[in-house]
Amino acid sequence: METPDVLAWRDGHIEALDQTALPHRIQILRLRTVDELIGAIRSLAIRGAPVLGAAGALGVALAVRQGHQEGWQPDRLAAEIGRIAAARPTAVNLAREVESVSQHLTATDNRAATEAAALEVLARSARVSIAISERGAAWLRERTREHTQGNRLRVHTHCNTGALACLGWGTALGVIRALGQQDVLDHVIVDETRPLLQGARLTCWELDQLGISHRLVADGAAPFLISQGLADAVVVGADRIARNGDVANKVGTFALALAARHKNIPFVVAAPESTIDLDTADGTRIPLELRPDDEITEPAAPRGTQALNYAFDITPAGLVTAIVTEERVITHLG
Amino acid sequence: METPDVLAWRDGHIEALDQTALPHRIQILRLRTVDELIGAIRSLAIRGAPVLGAAGALGVALAVRQGHQEGWQPDRLAAEIGRIAAARPTAVNLAREVESVSQHLTATDNRAATEAAALEVLARSARVSIAISERGAAWLRERTREHTQGNRLRVHTHCNTGALACLGWGTALGVIRALGQQDVLDHVIVDETRPLLQGARLTCWELDQLGISHRLVADGAAPFLISQGLADAVVVGADRIARNGDVANKVGTFALALAARHKNIPFVVAAPESTIDLDTADGTRIPLELRPDDEITEPAAPRGTQALNYAFDITPAGLVTAIVTEERVITHLG
Repeated sequence: METPDVLAWRDGHIEALDQTALPHRIQILRLRTVDELIGAIRSLAIRGAPVLGAAGALGVALAVRQGHQEGWQPDRLAAEIGRIAAARPTAVNLAREVESVSQHLTATDNRAATEAAALEVLARSARVSIAISERGAAWLRERTREHTQGNRLRVHTHCNTGALACLGWGTALGVIRALGQQDVLDHVIVDETRPLLQGARLTCWELDQLGISHRLVADGAAPFLISQGLADAVVVGADRIARNGDVANKVGTFALALAARHKNIPFVVAAPESTIDLDTADGTRIPLELRPDDEITEPAAPRGTQALNYAFDITPAGLVTAIVTEERVITHLG
Repeated sequence: METPDVLAWRDGHIEALDQTALPHRIQILRLRTVDELIGAIRSLAIRGAPVLGAAGALGVALAVRQGHQEGWQPDRLAAEIGRIAAARPTAVNLAREVESVSQHLTATDNRAATEAAALEVLARSARVSIAISERGAAWLRERTREHTQGNRLRVHTHCNTGALACLGWGTALGVIRALGQQDVLDHVIVDETRPLLQGARLTCWELDQLGISHRLVADGAAPFLISQGLADAVVVGADRIARNGDVANKVGTFALALAARHKNIPFVVAAPESTIDLDTADGTRIPLELRPDDEITEPAAPRGTQALNYAFDITPAGLVTAIVTEERVITHLG
């Protein structure tokens, strides 16, 4: 895939592919301050749980460098780093990787230590995504062997969980990419993923680049199409997984899980171990980001229309067939 | 509601409110030929199962008048009327009302007889919708009495089923309007209804006019919100109901029915008796309109993306709590 880096550290600043401009424009953001980074995260120019983790890691290095230039005291530096961790609430990866890189702040040269630690987070994210992809593909082939009777797999997915979201291969889309490489994939059904259309904009673009056949569908149609037998499995990513196996992911995921159960096909969550949050007992404790009304009301609804715009939903563990991480496959949930 | 007529017969032609221009523009179409009428139906300027029936009825009168002016032979007239009946495939009302008015073609003065019959279809459509609204509201109040414990009702709905779709009060939205008049309604949750956003554009506009509080949500979020207890009932319309009670309605409906069952709240279909098609044994026999890809792919997806754009889905009778018509409430389905 001849794509510019999704996220990189260059000459002391962050470079990020602006995911709000895709698929029609390739635009690189150069982020030199904590404010610029937080703006890019909030606008979803930088998005996807593992990429948010990597951005948080680089954010610590960026804050250290900005603090050094502007002469911040340690409490100011800590406050700025805290703002990065809190830029979006649902994905646990952001706060977690900010925390992991912050442990290197005690080094004599904060700059070198945090930069090295952040770059290691990026490299690990790519390695982890390839391990998830291969494990998920192997599990799915085994699980659907009887059902598909040697036919190629038709996989339904949601939102964007590829290289754009994860570095490396991705999570759910990484599993799909591995199935494609193994020549056992028929095609992919992609939800457009309202309101911000990450499926239509980003997943279709990545699948195009990979040469994988796909069809785009309206989110509302997805459960019906699953019920009609148009997919052999549903594979999605996750923004946070609670201790009991409840999964927070892009809104629209719960409906797919319900339909997969109705049709008795596997509903698989592909996510790094870092997405599992043992400090969160169950899905009711996961904060769900409520985003601005106008993402839904503009431009179609009458002026003044109010919305209810949850960006994420919770799929109860009982509806999840398997969680695939870089280390294991967790079944018998809920 | 100070709205121009949704559909009317004036000076020998059809006037229709262009529903593709709402909510931002009030635009009246003047349709003088069969081709213009079919164009307006296919583009969804005229839409909603009962309004399609009324448009088909007026279409027969229009064809008779055009045939009279242009000197059509009876077989040409029959062919033109057949084209109107087939302009869209899923809603049974269109073909049925074309058929009902066509029975008056044997009269001495075809023009007067078909115009009178068509106007009676319009008047009946309005009367029927008010009867459905009142029956549905009464049934729903009784059914949810224990669950809501005297609190006002929160109703989830899909697409547009109000005066714009049905004349009079509407079907599902008519039930909601009756609940509002009876002062037992808290608010309505409206699915935006991709790809053509009839919920965002039309239902929000009608609820605005009626002064009924509402929130707009993404279709993908709807099943999750229902699972979280945000609605006391789901009420939708129907485009065709098979003999066994399977319901064809705007795509996205099945997902709501699945979620309502999961949460154990009533899933109610409000529709005229004319929507029930005894000639269709079950949902697998209902033709589902596949609409153009670009309704989904434009403008967000990469050029060349293919879609799968079913405009309707089938909800199996087993997921339907009740079908409310102008004559009865049908329960114990499936």
